[in-house]
Amino acid sequence: MRLTVYLAGEIHSTWREEIKQKVLALNLPVDFIGPMENHDRSDNIGEEILGEQTSAVFKDAAASSFNNLRTSVLMHKADLVIALFGEQYKQWNTAMDASTAIAGGKPVIIIRPEKLHHPLKELSAKASATVETSDQAIKALSYIFE
Amino acid sequence: MRLTVYLAGEIHSTWREEIKQKVLALNLPVDFIGPMENHDRSDNIGEEILGEQTSAVFKDAAASSFNNLRTSVLMHKADLVIALFGEQYKQWNTAMDASTAIAGGKPVIIIRPEKLHHPLKELSAKASATVETSDQAIKALSYIFE
Amino acid sequence: MRLTVYLAGEIHSTWREEIKQKVLALNLPVDFIGPMENHDRSDNIGEEILGEQTSAVFKDAAASSFNNLRTSVLMHKADLVIALFGEQYKQWNTAMDASTAIAGGKPVIIIRPEKLHHPLKELSAKASATVETSDQAIKALSYIFE
Amino acid sequence: MRLTVYLAGEIHSTWREEIKQKVLALNLPVDFIGPMENHDRSDNIGEEILGEQTSAVFKDAAASSFNNLRTSVLMHKADLVIALFGEQYKQWNTAMDASTAIAGGKPVIIIRPEKLHHPLKELSAKASATVETSDQAIKALSYIFE
Amino acid sequence: MRLTVYLAGEIHSTWREEIKQKVLALNLPVDFIGPMENHDRSDNIGEEILGEQTSAVFKDAAASSFNNLRTSVLMHKADLVIALFGEQYKQWNTAMDASTAIAGGKPVIIIRPEKLHHPLKELSAKASATVETSDQAIKALSYIFE
Amino acid sequence: MRLTVYLAGEIHSTWREEIKQKVLALNLPVDFIGPMENHDRSDNIGEEILGEQTSAVFKDAAASSFNNLRTSVLMHKADLVIALFGEQYKQWNTAMDASTAIAGGKPVIIIRPEKLHHPLKELSAKASATVETSDQAIKALSYIFE
Amino acid sequence: MRLTVYLAGEIHSTWREEIKQKVLALNLPVDFIGPMENHDRSDNIGEEILGEQTSAVFKDAAASSFNNLRTSVLMHKADLVIALFGEQYKQWNTAMDASTAIAGGKPVIIIRPEKLHHPLKELSAKASATVETSDQAIKALSYIFE
Amino acid sequence: MRLTVYLAGEIHSTWREEIKQKVLALNLPVDFIGPMENHDRSDNIGEEILGEQTSAVFKDAAASSFNNLRTSVLMHKADLVIALFGEQYKQWNTAMDASTAIAGGKPVIIIRPEKLHHPLKELSAKASATVETSDQAIKALSYIFE
Repeated sequence: MRLTVYLAGEIHSTWREEIKQKVLALNLPVDFIGPMENHDRSDNIGEEILGEQTSAVFKDAAASSFNNLRTSVLMHKADLVIALFGEQYKQWNTAMDASTAIAGGKPVIIIRPEKLHHPLKELSAKASATVETSDQAIKALSYIFE
Repeated sequence: MRLTVYLAGEIHSTWREEIKQKVLALNLPVDFIGPMENHDRSDNIGEEILGEQTSAVFKDAAASSFNNLRTSVLMHKADLVIALFGEQYKQWNTAMDASTAIAGGKPVIIIRPEKLHHPLKELSAKASATVETSDQAIKALSYIFE
Repeated sequence: MRLTVYLAGEIHSTWREEIKQKVLALNLPVDFIGPMENHDRSDNIGEEILGEQTSAVFKDAAASSFNNLRTSVLMHKADLVIALFGEQYKQWNTAMDASTAIAGGKPVIIIRPEKLHHPLKELSAKASATVETSDQAIKALSYIFE
Repeated sequence: MRLTVYLAGEIHSTWREEIKQKVLALNLPVDFIGPMENHDRSDNIGEEILGEQTSAVFKDAAASSFNNLRTSVLMHKADLVIALFGEQYKQWNTAMDASTAIAGGKPVIIIRPEKLHHPLKELSAKASATVETSDQAIKALSYIFE
Repeated sequence: MRLTVYLAGEIHSTWREEIKQKVLALNLPVDFIGPMENHDRSDNIGEEILGEQTSAVFKDAAASSFNNLRTSVLMHKADLVIALFGEQYKQWNTAMDASTAIAGGKPVIIIRPEKLHHPLKELSAKASATVETSDQAIKALSYIFE
Repeated sequence: MRLTVYLAGEIHSTWREEIKQKVLALNLPVDFIGPMENHDRSDNIGEEILGEQTSAVFKDAAASSFNNLRTSVLMHKADLVIALFGEQYKQWNTAMDASTAIAGGKPVIIIRPEKLHHPLKELSAKASATVETSDQAIKALSYIFE
Repeated sequence: MRLTVYLAGEIHSTWREEIKQKVLALNLPVDFIGPMENHDRSDNIGEEILGEQTSAVFKDAAASSFNNLRTSVLMHKADLVIALFGEQYKQWNTAMDASTAIAGGKPVIIIRPEKLHHPLKELSAKASATVETSDQAIKALSYIFE
Repeated sequence: MRLTVYLAGEIHSTWREEIKQKVLALNLPVDFIGPMENHDRSDNIGEEILGEQTSAVFKDAAASSFNNLRTSVLMHKADLVIALFGEQYKQWNTAMDASTAIAGGKPVIIIRPEKLHHPLKELSAKASATVETSDQAIKALSYIFE
């Protein structure tokens, strides 16, 4: 049994790479997927495909359609979503991805520092599990295979 | 035909009251529902029902279960969700409510100031419509009845 | 038992009004809903709510979001969809509304002149019934109550 | 990860072949499926299987059942639908296939020349993304794998 | 609490009328719906609406579309289906209606004489309950309100 | 807004009556439904309708079909399920009703004494909220209307 | 692309074997599944597993549970159902399997002699296609791969 | 065709191992999955991942989230659930797993000693089949492949 795990969350740090390497070291049969991690490319993909847009809002609208397309295709392949919330950025995309997965019956692990417990309390209560570190999420993932 | 509209979003300002009064003035056949707007009560409802909890995290966990219960029951009654994003607070609850509604096939209108277009671009692309002010949302609501 | 019927199709003629009056004359307990029938208003609703847009495409994009919002809310209320195809216009909206209803398990009656049988053959095969005139659609509607 | 892409749209030009060859040249792990592209065979399949029919309408009815059977089986296999709208033909089948996919939660890319923006505005607003050329659709497809 | 009950099954005897009168005598808050009980009208409805057809098969095809339309609209309103199987006729419609209801999560009571237990054994095992007489079905219906 | 609440759980005590009276005293707009509370009647309903059965197992099989029929019809009407677990009896019916509601997206409040926390821990984690007393459940119910 | 096809219908003739051999000769990538074709075994499976039952009805009830189990597991694997109706037997199982597949969105081909058109008219209208012979069904199956 | 079977039920005896070995001896193409069978590990997994909790209830709440995560991921992979009820323990988890599978359309075989027929009568009536021993369940599983 292999599992496909979608890693939702911010794309400004290397947290996905760390999870992937640690899971690889554990020999867990997991394939990881996730959003475009090159932030500029994620922001520019609309203009890259459709050409220059006339305002920042329209540039964003164009980009969002291709980002949503990508997420929608990949999320259908996921057995499990791990969603990381950090202290920076609005991260409404992360809340959207986690909520969409939950609404579709897909299990979700939320990673968040304890100090974010308050604004995440309702989403945490709907997720399968909430942890504070990537290592804890990996333990939860590993537990599925034991 | 009456419509039931769930007003998702922050509970620190009077935006819901303004919408309700303007819609009342327009004689639109709309019933509004939404989250507990008394912020302290929303935060304390877990301890109010279950008694004092042993930490802030557990107090939040207790409160979130009753807030989610309330939202879940009411959201099932809604024909339409209007979700307001402002510049303060994390508002992950708002993103969760809007995304849950979208995933369940419920139409969603997002209200957000233009300056928030970037972090909301993917969620906006999945909503039925995005506007910048409550008055615009009311016009959209009114359009359904014309 | 009352039924709510959504009348999908072009908004350049008075076919809806004729159906409504004939059904009223038959005393059938039917409530009709449908798209905005004022064509200019349907095209301009985006700019009316959001203000002037920078191109015809963006004007259309703005309008479509409010038209889709309206259709989505109303279609949820419908027990039955009657979709009329005529010889003019692209009518992709009509095909979209009929197909969306069929995919969601809602019964659909298609009205089309016989000369359009060829391009509609696959959609007709998925609809509950296909007729050629509004009078035939009314007979079908009336048959449900007999 | 391989993706299966259903190419919906008219069957009078070679647009599918062009997409397939370009995607092959990019080494993308994509399997393409789609409707019967031999137009005569698509129109005659009913009589070919069931024997001569008594009128053009019945010939069409017979053909449509086997075309719908084929589309239904194949569409279930698709991860993504690319739907091309051109300036000729009614293309209600294309609108039906795209709308059915959208209603079933399948991501859809619409390809249409800009001049068709107006009649497609509502369908475009429901699709994941809208582009103007096959090359843009291929870029969007490629973006999913990056 | 009122319940709407769809009475599926043959339309050659007066079993529906007997159930309705007995339930009325019990003052149960039940609304009954069901297929067109005038057998000739059910067979002729296609030609009545669309005009004379060129063969018995096409006459049947035309009638079936309006009968399915009727059943589809009404079945959506039903809280419960009572399906009667007797010893005459093919009754594949009855099996279809009962199976469609079961597949959609609607409770079904099957009425059949004991001698039909063998060919109905799999369908009975999927129904909520199987009884042998209308009076037993009425007791089951009455039990819901006690 | 009225809510319909299904009270799942054992039928040997008067807990439902207490909840109903307290909710009545609070003037909450709630309609309560639930299983047959006459235990003998619940056990005997199969023989009462179908006649004497040949063994205790077959008597139970007959009864269960009518109890499931009743539950299925009523549960569809419920906006919310309150499921009480006590210290006596197997109560697998209660677990079944709560789990069925959760799987169907219906909000569930579990009432259980703290000493039962261990065997209910996984079901509690899937319910909307878990409380220890009927009074707490009533507070949760009341909170929805505030 | 391989397809899995469930062959629903009577188990007293060799029609399944003929279809399998002809499809094999055509080299179509199809895996066939279906009900237990040994009629005695199908009737006796309940007693074979659970031991002798006390009446013919209980023997049937026992058998039906294992036949339904088998069908349920296998039907989930099917991309397509071919359902054959002949002139003998009640064949309510066949109508049940076809209707269940249709209700679940699975494409269905009905094979029936023309003389059965009347009692099958409503089920035919809901199936993807209706043919008269196994050879026609094979042509329809083959058409999907062309 | 391989099947994946989830073995729900108590984790204090070796019943899973016995089933696995007997099915292996029969060369059936079945992959078995199930809950964490190390009882201590199942109870402690919350503290193992999240650290020591402040009470037995919170320890349980933490453990349940990871157990539910595991079950949710694995249950999605299952074609069939076999749920064993014995005479010891509350076994509400088993009732929850079986009911969740049934609600999601997954076939379920219940194994229970005859003396438990009464408290399981409603759940048995919703399962695909109920047997008394593991050997009978294996025969039922084997029957699917014959």
